[in-house]
Amino acid sequence: MLRAEKQDEMGKHKGSRAGFTVWFTGLSGTGKTTSSRLLKERLLAYGYRVELLDGDIVRQRLSRGLTFSKEDRDENIRRIGYVCELLGRNGVVSLVAAISPYRAAREWVRMQIPHFVEVYMECPLTVLIEKDVRGLYRRALAGKIPNFTGISDPYEPPLDPDVRIRSYQDTPTDGVDRIWEKLEKLRLVD
Amino acid sequence: MLRAEKQDEMGKHKGSRAGFTVWFTGLSGTGKTTSSRLLKERLLAYGYRVELLDGDIVRQRLSRGLTFSKEDRDENIRRIGYVCELLGRNGVVSLVAAISPYRAAREWVRMQIPHFVEVYMECPLTVLIEKDVRGLYRRALAGKIPNFTGISDPYEPPLDPDVRIRSYQDTPTDGVDRIWEKLEKLRLVD
Repeated sequence: MLRAEKQDEMGKHKGSRAGFTVWFTGLSGTGKTTSSRLLKERLLAYGYRVELLDGDIVRQRLSRGLTFSKEDRDENIRRIGYVCELLGRNGVVSLVAAISPYRAAREWVRMQIPHFVEVYMECPLTVLIEKDVRGLYRRALAGKIPNFTGISDPYEPPLDPDVRIRSYQDTPTDGVDRIWEKLEKLRLVD
Repeated sequence: MLRAEKQDEMGKHKGSRAGFTVWFTGLSGTGKTTSSRLLKERLLAYGYRVELLDGDIVRQRLSRGLTFSKEDRDENIRRIGYVCELLGRNGVVSLVAAISPYRAAREWVRMQIPHFVEVYMECPLTVLIEKDVRGLYRRALAGKIPNFTGISDPYEPPLDPDVRIRSYQDTPTDGVDRIWEKLEKLRLVD
C-alpha cells in the first residue's frame, strides 16, 4: 500500500489539525454534563473525533483514592489535563465536564494545552439549592457531604472565561450555539 | 467546507482503523524503553499516530501518590489501560513500557482493549544483575529499594505472550522486526 493511502486510512495527515479542549467548569447542577453531551453530539455529527471526560467517570478511572482536598482536586485536574494533551496532539477533541473549582489548576491546564476553551457554567447558588435535581445540596447543607463545592468548599469562578453560559436562563441548545460560535471565531471548527 | 473535506482535514474517516496497543512487560533493565522508542520511530515513519506511555512518566502524570504495593501497581496498570482505550478508539497506537509484573492486571487490560499485543522482554535475572546499567539491582539487593520487582517483589511472566524477545541475545532492531512481523500477521500494520 502506498504511504499516502495508509496515512489516509489511519487518519494521519500532515495537514491535520491539533485537537482542542473545551473545559466546562461550574458548580454541581449547572449543566456541565448535559451541555458537554450536546456539544459532543454536534461535533460527532460534523465528523470530529471527540472524547468526553466526565468528572464522575474520571474519578473512577484515573483518580480512584484521591480525596476532595484542594491538593487532590488539583491533582485530579492535572491528570485530566494530561489526557487532553495526549488526545489533542492526536487530533481528538476533548470535552471535560468537571467542577474544577480552583482557578490556578485550570490555568495550569490552559498552559499545557495548545487550544483550551474555558466554558463557565454560571448559576446562582440559591437557584441550584432550590432546584437541587440530585438532592445533593440538601444533603450537603445538612452536613452529610463534606467538601461540597459551593457549600463547604470554595469555588473560584473564572475571571475571563472564553464562554459564559447562564444556565438558569439559557437553554442547553442556546449554550452550545454560543460555544460553537466561539469555536468558529477561534477557527477550531468551521 | 464540505463535510467530506472536513473529515479529511481532521483525520476522521468512517473507514479508519481502530488503534492498537503494544504492551512491553518485563523486569527492569530488559530494554522495554529502548524497544518501545525504536518501535515508535518505525510506526511514525510509516505514518501512524503513536503515543508512548513510559512507566516512569506515567507514574508522574497519572499515578502520583501510588505505592508499589500489588494493589497500587494494579491500579497504575488499569489507568494506563484506560488511556490506551481512549487513544485506541481514536485511531492512535499506544506503546506501553511498564514492568507490569502481575499477570491478572495485564489480562484485565487485554480484555478492555480491542487490539492488545503483549511483548515479553525476557532476560535472566543473573544477567540483569551483572549488567545493572542503572545500578538499581545493586541497590535493591542491598535492601535500599523496597518492593523491587525480581528481587523483593514478584514478577509473573506471561504464559503465552504475543511476542517474546530475549533481550540478552536479540538486538533491539531484531526485536522490533519480530514485533513488526507479528503486527503484520495480525493485520494491524501493512
